[in-house]
Amino acid sequence: MTKIEDFYDLIETQLKMLEIQKEPQGLYSPVNYVLSPGGKRLRPLLCLASAALFGDYGSSLMPAIGLEVFHNFTLLHDDIMDQADMRRNQATVHRKWNNNTAILSGDVMLIKAYEHVSKAPIGVLPQVLEVFNQTALEVCEGQQYDMEFEQLLNVSEDQYLEMIRLKTAVLIGASMKIGAIIGGGNLKDSTALYDFGQDVGLAFQLQDDWLDTYGNQKEFGKKIGGDILANKKTFLLISALSRLEGENKRELIEWLHRKEYDDAEKIAAVTTLFDEAGVSALLCEKRDRLCDHAFERLAKTGGDKSIKKDIEYLTRKLMERQR
Amino acid sequence: MTKIEDFYDLIETQLKMLEIQKEPQGLYSPVNYVLSPGGKRLRPLLCLASAALFGDYGSSLMPAIGLEVFHNFTLLHDDIMDQADMRRNQATVHRKWNNNTAILSGDVMLIKAYEHVSKAPIGVLPQVLEVFNQTALEVCEGQQYDMEFEQLLNVSEDQYLEMIRLKTAVLIGASMKIGAIIGGGNLKDSTALYDFGQDVGLAFQLQDDWLDTYGNQKEFGKKIGGDILANKKTFLLISALSRLEGENKRELIEWLHRKEYDDAEKIAAVTTLFDEAGVSALLCEKRDRLCDHAFERLAKTGGDKSIKKDIEYLTRKLMERQR
Repeated sequence: MTKIEDFYDLIETQLKMLEIQKEPQGLYSPVNYVLSPGGKRLRPLLCLASAALFGDYGSSLMPAIGLEVFHNFTLLHDDIMDQADMRRNQATVHRKWNNNTAILSGDVMLIKAYEHVSKAPIGVLPQVLEVFNQTALEVCEGQQYDMEFEQLLNVSEDQYLEMIRLKTAVLIGASMKIGAIIGGGNLKDSTALYDFGQDVGLAFQLQDDWLDTYGNQKEFGKKIGGDILANKKTFLLISALSRLEGENKRELIEWLHRKEYDDAEKIAAVTTLFDEAGVSALLCEKRDRLCDHAFERLAKTGGDKSIKKDIEYLTRKLMERQR
Repeated sequence: MTKIEDFYDLIETQLKMLEIQKEPQGLYSPVNYVLSPGGKRLRPLLCLASAALFGDYGSSLMPAIGLEVFHNFTLLHDDIMDQADMRRNQATVHRKWNNNTAILSGDVMLIKAYEHVSKAPIGVLPQVLEVFNQTALEVCEGQQYDMEFEQLLNVSEDQYLEMIRLKTAVLIGASMKIGAIIGGGNLKDSTALYDFGQDVGLAFQLQDDWLDTYGNQKEFGKKIGGDILANKKTFLLISALSRLEGENKRELIEWLHRKEYDDAEKIAAVTTLFDEAGVSALLCEKRDRLCDHAFERLAKTGGDKSIKKDIEYLTRKLMERQR
């Protein structure tokens, strides 16, 4: 794992150098705050590793940073829209400052993301920008669907999977594709890596949904049952709503509408209904199928074998760590 | 003026083709709404004209559209931050839809802006992106200063001019520079056009400030005195605050703090104080000096003479039209 650890240090060093000391501080300090150490840096790690699969990863560093900045931009703006108070154990920007600051500093981050992605080698720049532009639009589409689904009672499993594909999985796929393009991978390999990234991205999100209800609180780091209390449309809830019938379904819908309740009681009752519907097993099956499929694909992809092992190790560790 | 009219039609046709019919409509229809016909299209016009000065303007069309999309993105997000209700005689996006829609559709527009700017010819793409990235950041800095200044009583004329330079003038300069780069202008000429655009951009904003108080309501199209009622930190107010003394200054500050008043009375009283301070003449002098300087510079710049005349005619017409 030394290679990935090297990449991680490289990314943190570069992000540290990106720290913006210029005026107006009211605009730039929220950007520094959001990019401060602590993230998993999954997207730039996968970008660098995907470049290293085929050649020199050096020239993928700036675009990799751009992908991390873009990811953090989406979190910043999503947190305003979702009125979230906390992110990575610290107050969100719109809470620590205010909505206007969060909007404008987010805009700056999106521009900074492009500034870094634009530093891809000129020979592949149009190709890299095309992948990035399309992905950035898709991520916005995903967020739009996410907000729309919160207002709907009937969302299908397929609609949900398409939403999380857009909102989170495509960016992981794009990070790998962009790395592969810069590293010199061919079209077949860069496409395969995109698909790998997209599949593990979906699996990560399903795993997140699962952990919020079935995780071990200590390891998970967040309070268990938060999604249930917020009526969040996770795979578990959507799936349970479509699979339960009769009394059970009525009971679940009643819990969604109830205004006053004891938190622990609601979490226990809804979890029991999830169990009735068998949605935990369903989710785990889907998640594991996605992972297996992804790793099979990775095995068939070209590139340096030891880096491939590193990529597999990193993604497996991220899946394991949270169980 | 046929050339500029041709450019205008080209821009409207291209913007019409950009209309996004895909899902999710909740994300894309606000984008179509904002880009619908009616704007002056000043930035893309100047971009195309600046390219035409030196060569074929065809390949500057997509970047020119990107500049217009970017400009409209800034209006969309600024309107949220300023809680503005109306824009070009129609409801702002956050009023017609809601804040979340306005944030996310604005993000999409910023991405779309980059998508179009990225279509600059590969030979000049890094150069064009560098100008665009820097300008985009500066526009955000300008908006940040604008918001900060609203909370301050003491803003100097120089600080105000620097704010409007960043918030509005640099984008006009950049539109011309990007056009010139794509058209094949040399560094000296593209820099001169940037400076020309920046100076007329400053003059336009000063003129806007002037018209809001001293304009002819019919021709101006907006209600006269809106800035005064909103205590908006225009050049007139900032200048009056720094130039008035004693009783007059106290009276002006009192009007700024008064909560209840008759609109017409406040407009009349503050205008009288502006007149006492002589700030109208001061503004006009500054505006005219900027324009004269800009046109002298343009005269010395290389490129097709008839297009230079078109550029001068267009900018003079825009200044005149509003008087």
